[in-house]
Amino acid sequence: MKRTLGELAALLQGEVKGPADLPIEGIAALEEAGPREISFVTQKRFARLVSRSQAGAFIVAPELADLPRPLIIVPHPYLAYARVAALFAPARRRWPGVSEQACLGRELTLGRDVSIAPLVFIGDRVRLDDGVTVMPGCYLGDEVHLGAGTLIYPNVTILERCRLGRNCIVHSGTVIGADGFGFIPTPAGNEKIPQLGTVVIEDEVEIGANCTIDRGALGETRVGRGVKIDNLVHLAHNVAVGEHSLLVAQVGVSGSTKLGQRVILAGQVGVVGHLELGDGVRVGAKSGVAHSVPAGQDVSGIPAFPQRQWLQSMAILPKLSDLYRRLKRLEQQVAELAAPPDKEPES
Amino acid sequence: MKRTLGELAALLQGEVKGPADLPIEGIAALEEAGPREISFVTQKRFARLVSRSQAGAFIVAPELADLPRPLIIVPHPYLAYARVAALFAPARRRWPGVSEQACLGRELTLGRDVSIAPLVFIGDRVRLDDGVTVMPGCYLGDEVHLGAGTLIYPNVTILERCRLGRNCIVHSGTVIGADGFGFIPTPAGNEKIPQLGTVVIEDEVEIGANCTIDRGALGETRVGRGVKIDNLVHLAHNVAVGEHSLLVAQVGVSGSTKLGQRVILAGQVGVVGHLELGDGVRVGAKSGVAHSVPAGQDVSGIPAFPQRQWLQSMAILPKLSDLYRRLKRLEQQVAELAAPPDKEPES
Amino acid sequence: MKRTLGELAALLQGEVKGPADLPIEGIAALEEAGPREISFVTQKRFARLVSRSQAGAFIVAPELADLPRPLIIVPHPYLAYARVAALFAPARRRWPGVSEQACLGRELTLGRDVSIAPLVFIGDRVRLDDGVTVMPGCYLGDEVHLGAGTLIYPNVTILERCRLGRNCIVHSGTVIGADGFGFIPTPAGNEKIPQLGTVVIEDEVEIGANCTIDRGALGETRVGRGVKIDNLVHLAHNVAVGEHSLLVAQVGVSGSTKLGQRVILAGQVGVVGHLELGDGVRVGAKSGVAHSVPAGQDVSGIPAFPQRQWLQSMAILPKLSDLYRRLKRLEQQVAELAAPPDKEPES
Repeated sequence: MKRTLGELAALLQGEVKGPADLPIEGIAALEEAGPREISFVTQKRFARLVSRSQAGAFIVAPELADLPRPLIIVPHPYLAYARVAALFAPARRRWPGVSEQACLGRELTLGRDVSIAPLVFIGDRVRLDDGVTVMPGCYLGDEVHLGAGTLIYPNVTILERCRLGRNCIVHSGTVIGADGFGFIPTPAGNEKIPQLGTVVIEDEVEIGANCTIDRGALGETRVGRGVKIDNLVHLAHNVAVGEHSLLVAQVGVSGSTKLGQRVILAGQVGVVGHLELGDGVRVGAKSGVAHSVPAGQDVSGIPAFPQRQWLQSMAILPKLSDLYRRLKRLEQQVAELAAPPDKEPES
Repeated sequence: MKRTLGELAALLQGEVKGPADLPIEGIAALEEAGPREISFVTQKRFARLVSRSQAGAFIVAPELADLPRPLIIVPHPYLAYARVAALFAPARRRWPGVSEQACLGRELTLGRDVSIAPLVFIGDRVRLDDGVTVMPGCYLGDEVHLGAGTLIYPNVTILERCRLGRNCIVHSGTVIGADGFGFIPTPAGNEKIPQLGTVVIEDEVEIGANCTIDRGALGETRVGRGVKIDNLVHLAHNVAVGEHSLLVAQVGVSGSTKLGQRVILAGQVGVVGHLELGDGVRVGAKSGVAHSVPAGQDVSGIPAFPQRQWLQSMAILPKLSDLYRRLKRLEQQVAELAAPPDKEPES
Repeated sequence: MKRTLGELAALLQGEVKGPADLPIEGIAALEEAGPREISFVTQKRFARLVSRSQAGAFIVAPELADLPRPLIIVPHPYLAYARVAALFAPARRRWPGVSEQACLGRELTLGRDVSIAPLVFIGDRVRLDDGVTVMPGCYLGDEVHLGAGTLIYPNVTILERCRLGRNCIVHSGTVIGADGFGFIPTPAGNEKIPQLGTVVIEDEVEIGANCTIDRGALGETRVGRGVKIDNLVHLAHNVAVGEHSLLVAQVGVSGSTKLGQRVILAGQVGVVGHLELGDGVRVGAKSGVAHSVPAGQDVSGIPAFPQRQWLQSMAILPKLSDLYRRLKRLEQQVAELAAPPDKEPES
């Protein structure tokens, strides 16, 4: 695909500086872009890399409008980069129609332009709305429902009765609707609590590779509209994730915990079960959240406490042994000060 | 399926309060149950929710026998709930018999009522005992043996020579019998130690989704009878897990470590290799166990130490910066006290 | 397979002590070996187990040359064990040639002796060099390239345009080339940044089960020659891992971070994005690396700091509550010392 600098600027509602007819065939990072590619500067401190870059043009913020190179000037270069990248992204190849090498159940409801690849297994009474794509190696259990435009990458497992909304993306290896981890220890062993619920994924949700989202014990596990989940994330039974939240890789959320809207859990965070994290809560990487957190609060640590306090404590942690030594010395000094003056302290 | 309140009470060996012929068609949580469903109260503090619940009847402990609603009174409502849930659980759909779209190896030994779905690959000399279910997308390597009643969910990989006992459940995406992580760093690179062992899973074990249980380097990796493993758990080569232990999501256990019986590892725990954790040891969420732990002990922390001490230390951690400031002030005060009285201290 | 003690010694360039014609049919651990098997002693403290071992012979270091049993004496018994294990490892069974039950795309380039099992899906313009093995359930997207001798275990997903070098091993359930986690929060929701890059895995790399290695946002995610990766490891977009590094299970590395050569990340480590870890850096288990680390340094902790200091701090951590109590007592004592002598302090 080929565009001109002027066309891209129009798309981005940005201002061109330089030749509007400059041909642009792709987008790349500053160090890797060639003369037929556009690059971008998201932070002022990277501006020094522009002079060395081979890129044909640059997307920049107004503060860098003086750079002596062809430019598109926009208020948010990072967002503009995302949009240009979408423009140059290769069209996804889909299996045309329903493969004869897929195993299909009975009473399917298929919308228009549904793509079912070979080596897919689909149970009974499954409903796939317009434009759904199911890639090879996937399993969809009975009565699964995928909303219009949803894309399922290879080797995904979606178990019976789980529902996904419109324009969702599920990456490879992810398992939706496995049994929640529910057992009652008894003298004879751990008795299984049957997991009768389901999983509901709302619209525009993206789920990374090799995640696990368990079905509710009773009722639903629910992932709200616009939520984005990274790889290897675990959501236990009856968890609810509020709209537009971001869950970074290797996060785990225990049973029945409710996350508000626009919550951010950084990488490898764990959250104990039956908690509530309010809207906008942000949890620092590797933290373990053991108590509910009110809306808007940032927390970190294991167990987690307010972020500012955590930063202060962590600044002291490397000095802990020095601190202990100083405490012992003080104890000795104070003992000497308190002792009768006619006795020498023993070393 | 429809039951009466009296029938359920008989099943649970509980006492009915209210109309024994009340029809019950399902079980649901207090907030979600309708008039044809039974609900349950597992803790006294939830009793206040009963008045607002639409449920037709409630399973409760004797201490709540006064609630003015139809009741089944039992000593352990949570266990009773599990049993009623099992009663109302939909029958699992299985592929009837052996699919012609499965790829079968030679010299298979198949018991009665074995279900092998389409898109399954089974190697040579595999043995599947009575009632085994293998769902689509699974791979069973040569000489794998699955005991009677074992259920393998879609897209599971079980590599050659691994053995599972009776009535096991393995959830989707799990890999049993991959090579253990064994390498010897040499000047030329990391030399692989061939992983010649196997994995033995005893009876009644349940393994969650996307777990990895590696084969022994030599000898076995072994998971004891009745062990329950949550999602995304990693067991390294030659690990042994004692009977009825519980491993919560995202736990990792390093090579050759031995867990006793009824050990509980909470979510995201890691255990160093070549350790022994005695019977009944419990490890708090996100802990890192770096030393062996005697039977019956609870530990937490990174590295883990006794739980009670850990709780005390964690109570201080948020005050660490305050503590440090107070220490510095004390040092100054003590220096002033020790200084000759005729000199004013500098601020 | 059967060998003699003398043949094994020749292979290992070691010295025989005992009957050179002793038949050896396998290798096993000290406790499990039988009289037709050889065992090995990697550390002097295990020498006491030799007298009780049923093994027919032992691989030992020169310091144990006096043991009154048939021996092969070598400088590095652990390395010798790895080589004998390789000798006795059963030959891997491969599907002979290209299965008719695989789904093949167009314009494939297949080397000699390529094995493609049933139930494999291969896209267009894929190139598989000599001796490549692809086991059942795998997906290879368009334009994937696997170097000579590379082995892909069952149920692996390798998405379009990703490239692996020669003699790589990828274990089951791993996903290579899923989209990186790139979103821009906007008032309307999280806008996806298209992930246009790819993944390059160099020669001799081994990747464990259920890992996820995301494609670059732009440019590459790169895993260097000889790197060995354990199970459930996550590498984000544009990460680079230097040659011969070792990444233990459940590690996560965030976007654009660069690891040097021979870096070791122990189990469950997390590394923040956009960092550089120099050659030979070693990070202790469960640590969270929040800043770049110079070559050769060992670090631990959350956030990580130098290992020696971390060990000192962790030694104090269990005493933190005691330390706090002592600080408060000192404050009281100092207040008493500083107080006018005619006033009794209140308790």
